[in-house]
Amino acid sequence: MRQITVIGSGSEVSKSVWDMAEELGRRIAKRRAVLICGGKGGVMEAVCKGAKQEGGLTVGILPGTVDEANNYVDIKIVTEMGDARNAINVKSGDAVIVVCGGAGTLSEIGMALKARKKIVALVKSGGVATMLSNAVIDGQNVVPASSVDEALRHVFE
Amino acid sequence: MRQITVIGSGSEVSKSVWDMAEELGRRIAKRRAVLICGGKGGVMEAVCKGAKQEGGLTVGILPGTVDEANNYVDIKIVTEMGDARNAINVKSGDAVIVVCGGAGTLSEIGMALKARKKIVALVKSGGVATMLSNAVIDGQNVVPASSVDEALRHVFE
Amino acid sequence: MRQITVIGSGSEVSKSVWDMAEELGRRIAKRRAVLICGGKGGVMEAVCKGAKQEGGLTVGILPGTVDEANNYVDIKIVTEMGDARNAINVKSGDAVIVVCGGAGTLSEIGMALKARKKIVALVKSGGVATMLSNAVIDGQNVVPASSVDEALRHVFE
Amino acid sequence: MRQITVIGSGSEVSKSVWDMAEELGRRIAKRRAVLICGGKGGVMEAVCKGAKQEGGLTVGILPGTVDEANNYVDIKIVTEMGDARNAINVKSGDAVIVVCGGAGTLSEIGMALKARKKIVALVKSGGVATMLSNAVIDGQNVVPASSVDEALRHVFE
Repeated sequence: MRQITVIGSGSEVSKSVWDMAEELGRRIAKRRAVLICGGKGGVMEAVCKGAKQEGGLTVGILPGTVDEANNYVDIKIVTEMGDARNAINVKSGDAVIVVCGGAGTLSEIGMALKARKKIVALVKSGGVATMLSNAVIDGQNVVPASSVDEALRHVFE
Repeated sequence: MRQITVIGSGSEVSKSVWDMAEELGRRIAKRRAVLICGGKGGVMEAVCKGAKQEGGLTVGILPGTVDEANNYVDIKIVTEMGDARNAINVKSGDAVIVVCGGAGTLSEIGMALKARKKIVALVKSGGVATMLSNAVIDGQNVVPASSVDEALRHVFE
Repeated sequence: MRQITVIGSGSEVSKSVWDMAEELGRRIAKRRAVLICGGKGGVMEAVCKGAKQEGGLTVGILPGTVDEANNYVDIKIVTEMGDARNAINVKSGDAVIVVCGGAGTLSEIGMALKARKKIVALVKSGGVATMLSNAVIDGQNVVPASSVDEALRHVFE
Repeated sequence: MRQITVIGSGSEVSKSVWDMAEELGRRIAKRRAVLICGGKGGVMEAVCKGAKQEGGLTVGILPGTVDEANNYVDIKIVTEMGDARNAINVKSGDAVIVVCGGAGTLSEIGMALKARKKIVALVKSGGVATMLSNAVIDGQNVVPASSVDEALRHVFE
């Protein structure tokens, strides 16, 4: 099974970002890929919810205990290692998609580039996805995508 | 979904230990629980193989890269953090079952007790499962089970 | 500089165990070795206090935040990764000495054996130091020492 | 003792970046602060070398084994957890200074902002230090400094 990691804001997001993330989750599930994420709220919750709407399988790599998981996480990986678990999120995906996001997401973009993962940012989602989209670091770039459709084409094709 | 962690030797094991672990995997899958393990060889491979024979879902928390996974791991969690990932193995299970095992397994028994998880050891499997079965540490004991059947009763009932 | 790791109970210990740990700290400092430990209370506090009495240098690998450090820790390594930091404790020492200890210490003994570190247990200190002293796991043994003096001879000679 | 973390490129750097990092190390040591870094080459080696020229104390949080440490690391913290150790680097510093840097350094900037550490970037050093200097993420900014002097004023005053 392919494993796709989605990273992004853990706090409350706007309706348009939520809808984008939910749509992304549905599309990942339709492709029969496993969704890997941080398992918490915000973008993580939206993408998990979308995946479950299409019968997908969701994995949450939790920074703390099992209670942190949103309601749409199937497999709960309990790390209790805080932000250090961000490395596991990105290493466990065959590719990484960024939706909005702040400081934690920034750390994951850095780790994804370090691990030489394909990484795609939804440029209209705001936050670090917009700020870093098209950035070239260590000779590798964050691929900008203007829609969920385009992001998936970059990841699956 | 319930998540059951199985820990034990990563190196080659005797036929009787392999059979015990494979049977354990089948029985966990029949109970519709998700199998969590270290994802490598030996006991981990046997228990994953058993689970897949019954259509179960298997998760491997890998110490290194994705290539280390045995052929029966569905979800590959790539930590690249060596033995420090042992903490994640035991924290991600609702309960822990020990089959044989050496130094790495010993560290997981310690962490399971520290996390106050229910932990059951197959006393006939040898290694630290036999050595520590019935041990009482910090007021908590490693529950001895003389068969796969008994181990599952301790975990599920 | 040599780095010696001391592991043991984080909770309150008896006066005799405290004195043993404090003496151990003094002796490590006199040998000009750096003391590595978990940085918290109990045995960790006693061994750090002893080391500082002789002008030694102490390092605490903390499971949580900086506030957890006892008063005798010079260098505070903040992991915020809970028990997963136990792996770092034992890997950072050229050798490991065990004083008393419960479940957390048990996990460190397992990791020290896995990392093939020389590991010495003060057999009179109780807890897992007594329980595991002389245990042979994966062909390697926990070396029993009946005094601080003997433990240091095993480690430095 | 104050602990200052310096992050930056692990690969070979230009002479001007090396000199900047070495000067930074000397100045941190003169302030009697402990230098925390990743312990490897490039900026990490230069800053450690500078600190030792002034009799400072250097700590390397190593991603792998002890052999990775540069020659100027006093205390070697062996994590064997790859990039996940980046979290420890930034959490262990009272403040963080960025010199040049690529993807790994980017992940550390993200984690430093997440941990709400004061973070200062030497804007003339290139790489992500230049790219992110003045960035505002989650309401917190990477403080730009045009010289080592200015960076230290931000950190110590």
